[in-house]
Amino acid sequence: MKSYLKLAEKFETISRLNNANAILGWDNAVMIREGSAAYRAQDMAALSAVAHHIINSSEVSDLLDDAEQNQNDLDEWQKANLKLIRHSWKHSTAVPEKLLKDFSVAGSKCELHWRQARNDNDYKTYAHFQKPVLEMAKDIAGLKAQALGLSKYDALLDQYDAGRRSKDIDFVFADLESFLPSFIQQVLEKQRSQGEVILPQGKFPIDKQESLGRFLMDKIGFDFNKGRLDVSSHPFCGGTSTDVRITTRYDEGDFTSSLMGVLHETGHALYEMGLPADYNGQPVGEALGMTIHESQSLLMEMQVCRSKEFVNFVLPHIVERFGDQRAFEAENFYKLYNKVEPSLIRVDADEVTYPIHVIIRYKLEKAMVNNELQVDDLPSAWNELYKNLLGVNVPDYKNGCLQDIHWADGSYGYFPTYTLGAITASQLFASCKMQNPTIMDEIGRGNFNRLVSWLRENIHSKGSLFSADKLIENVTGEALNAENFKNYLKDKYLG
Amino acid sequence: MKSYLKLAEKFETISRLNNANAILGWDNAVMIREGSAAYRAQDMAALSAVAHHIINSSEVSDLLDDAEQNQNDLDEWQKANLKLIRHSWKHSTAVPEKLLKDFSVAGSKCELHWRQARNDNDYKTYAHFQKPVLEMAKDIAGLKAQALGLSKYDALLDQYDAGRRSKDIDFVFADLESFLPSFIQQVLEKQRSQGEVILPQGKFPIDKQESLGRFLMDKIGFDFNKGRLDVSSHPFCGGTSTDVRITTRYDEGDFTSSLMGVLHETGHALYEMGLPADYNGQPVGEALGMTIHESQSLLMEMQVCRSKEFVNFVLPHIVERFGDQRAFEAENFYKLYNKVEPSLIRVDADEVTYPIHVIIRYKLEKAMVNNELQVDDLPSAWNELYKNLLGVNVPDYKNGCLQDIHWADGSYGYFPTYTLGAITASQLFASCKMQNPTIMDEIGRGNFNRLVSWLRENIHSKGSLFSADKLIENVTGEALNAENFKNYLKDKYLG
Repeated sequence: MKSYLKLAEKFETISRLNNANAILGWDNAVMIREGSAAYRAQDMAALSAVAHHIINSSEVSDLLDDAEQNQNDLDEWQKANLKLIRHSWKHSTAVPEKLLKDFSVAGSKCELHWRQARNDNDYKTYAHFQKPVLEMAKDIAGLKAQALGLSKYDALLDQYDAGRRSKDIDFVFADLESFLPSFIQQVLEKQRSQGEVILPQGKFPIDKQESLGRFLMDKIGFDFNKGRLDVSSHPFCGGTSTDVRITTRYDEGDFTSSLMGVLHETGHALYEMGLPADYNGQPVGEALGMTIHESQSLLMEMQVCRSKEFVNFVLPHIVERFGDQRAFEAENFYKLYNKVEPSLIRVDADEVTYPIHVIIRYKLEKAMVNNELQVDDLPSAWNELYKNLLGVNVPDYKNGCLQDIHWADGSYGYFPTYTLGAITASQLFASCKMQNPTIMDEIGRGNFNRLVSWLRENIHSKGSLFSADKLIENVTGEALNAENFKNYLKDKYLG
Repeated sequence: MKSYLKLAEKFETISRLNNANAILGWDNAVMIREGSAAYRAQDMAALSAVAHHIINSSEVSDLLDDAEQNQNDLDEWQKANLKLIRHSWKHSTAVPEKLLKDFSVAGSKCELHWRQARNDNDYKTYAHFQKPVLEMAKDIAGLKAQALGLSKYDALLDQYDAGRRSKDIDFVFADLESFLPSFIQQVLEKQRSQGEVILPQGKFPIDKQESLGRFLMDKIGFDFNKGRLDVSSHPFCGGTSTDVRITTRYDEGDFTSSLMGVLHETGHALYEMGLPADYNGQPVGEALGMTIHESQSLLMEMQVCRSKEFVNFVLPHIVERFGDQRAFEAENFYKLYNKVEPSLIRVDADEVTYPIHVIIRYKLEKAMVNNELQVDDLPSAWNELYKNLLGVNVPDYKNGCLQDIHWADGSYGYFPTYTLGAITASQLFASCKMQNPTIMDEIGRGNFNRLVSWLRENIHSKGSLFSADKLIENVTGEALNAENFKNYLKDKYLG
């Protein structure tokens, strides 16, 4: 117990260093002036390095060994915490500090050139800076694979979603890949037969948009005493679980994108706010990996806030702020919010075509990490998959393989979590509705209490006590699978 | 050299941890929601503890010894840096961590109760929480005194203004104490003979006040590419030297207080912005102690921005924003900005009576640290000094010895730096004007280039290369003394 407690103290310090970096990161996106950013990056790197030194010390290594040999008097949460600490230790000690630093520098450099190259539609320059990033990512993958007893790509996946393996992803993605292309055609046909969707017209003042967002956040359960809503050019949910900070961006010509963005980030925020306070500062008190996190935002955005019931609830509040117009008729607004259209850009995609964007990236990044695809050959492979799976022709690099930041900054293994999150959201929400038959009616009346209580009790308050897969099984009674997601899509888009 | 460089690396990490805490501190005052504040305090304490561990490690101790024995190949800046590192090490290692932590907890507790006790005019409750803070401050003073070879009170002073000794303060404060009381009477008589000052009337919209503040900050030389102006309930200059963040508070009924506050903080900000970039992250690259820092804000606020020349420059910009009125006539406005009135509250005091407030606190806190005054006897001692030196009767505790936060949170030794800063500002600015005879005319035309260049070259860019006293001597040719300050007051208020 003594070693465990000492270890927990070390990890609380690491957690507090990470908290500081999370607030600095928020500040970076929302507050900082351009001239200060380079110095800030050095401050943040120094905090990460200090955390890295703590975890890589021989003291922590000894404490870990000792705590594992004497865990009889630990309770369930402490045992889970110890496992997570060992897992984090394995990831951290697998890679020499120099390689991590070089990787970080190369990633920052590539990200910088990527922005310019994307503007200039210049793949050659991008490729030049991408290659060393990929090489180092593969080196890191190799070292972590060895330390964790995994394949290279699985070792990368494991960084974002502990316990996730590519064989599980292959299984659900194959299911979707065989289902979606023809399904998308059916949806498009049906939508064509329903006639044009009327777009909202006019200028939607930012203060009114903000008031709508805050009203809904509050209604759903965002605790403004422990969190904020601000503006940044790329919306995100940041800060810490005791100080949750979501951001949005406003477009005076279109309020719907900020609105849905705020609801998406509110899903993330509720997860953070609902984490077990007793384990604040310990790995077991943190959110599970990116799949579960994304499931919480997508459950809120897609399952709840793009439902007919929610549309009925929210429309009067929209009309109150922006006046009435034909586009705000319930049936039209619902259609507007669930319009399907194969397109080139992932972040603008609807939920039906989105998985295809992810599956394409998953195939490509796995091939790159496994030496089956070279950076120079990426564009043609990309374009071919877009043609085959989504039926779209990619006209240039910037609307093709240069659109995302992930590979530029070295985040191989991240992409699948978006669609795994969507699948998980469907599976969780199907159980929620089964257990709470009145829940959609309540949402239609603007009452989110039962929903949030259910999420808190079944998911948020569990922190990282279970693995993501175990949590899904506990809540839904079955392993992660795409059945619910497919049924949900069929009901919603063809039903 | 090798040991020195390793040491410098350690201190860069400490500096970056402090930078992070500086931004978190700004966020605390400007951004954070109430419910997150307690967790934030824990994050900040953890960062301080990490910095404390680094400086107290045996590795740093060994490196310091070795670097000191091999400093022949160090340049002037590196040698000064090494001295500062040793100084900082002495302060840090003198006090056991447990005592520091207990002191910090007792200070936070006392601060909390002080707020309430001040509201309730309840000295008994305050005294109960103040006593342990004072006892621990004395313990810390004793330990630091031993480590530094100083008296107890000097060891506390040395925390805020390295090298400052009470015998120097006694000398200049005695000079002021014999000069000010009768001088104040003369000024009051003269001001009475000049008739009433007309106060600005009306509502002064916050956005106009902000625009005026930003206009002047920019004009004076605040770099908005590396800094911000925001709102907080207690104005301050925070952030880091590469990301300087000043705050103000606005009162729609009175724009003058925010205006002068912004100019004061701009003085602090220019100092931070002008520190030597080559030594960013090292003690020698930091600002000198609180006396020089306060000299920079007071030089800007009092010497420059309350001058006739500045008033002439700024009035059209005031009229442009708020319309014209009789109070904005130059002579009246100048009088308004330099009105002298003995009063009870330090933070509201004019520059003539302000030193008396400080001298009183200096006498009292020195007596408390030296066991010559007990907490229970503070109110009567306080009231007697206010009666004798300022001629005012203190009606209650909250307008008397309960008005300041400093003793509640344990900052004994801080008060003198306010008045030492004012004296230093006069002494520096007298030299500046002597060397630049056209400078007041230029300020009258809104041209601050020569002023800022002079400050940069002579003060800001020197960082902590010299001690405060040595810097003052280098720039002015004489040791710190109150002559210039007295002459300045005589010229301005009786001339």
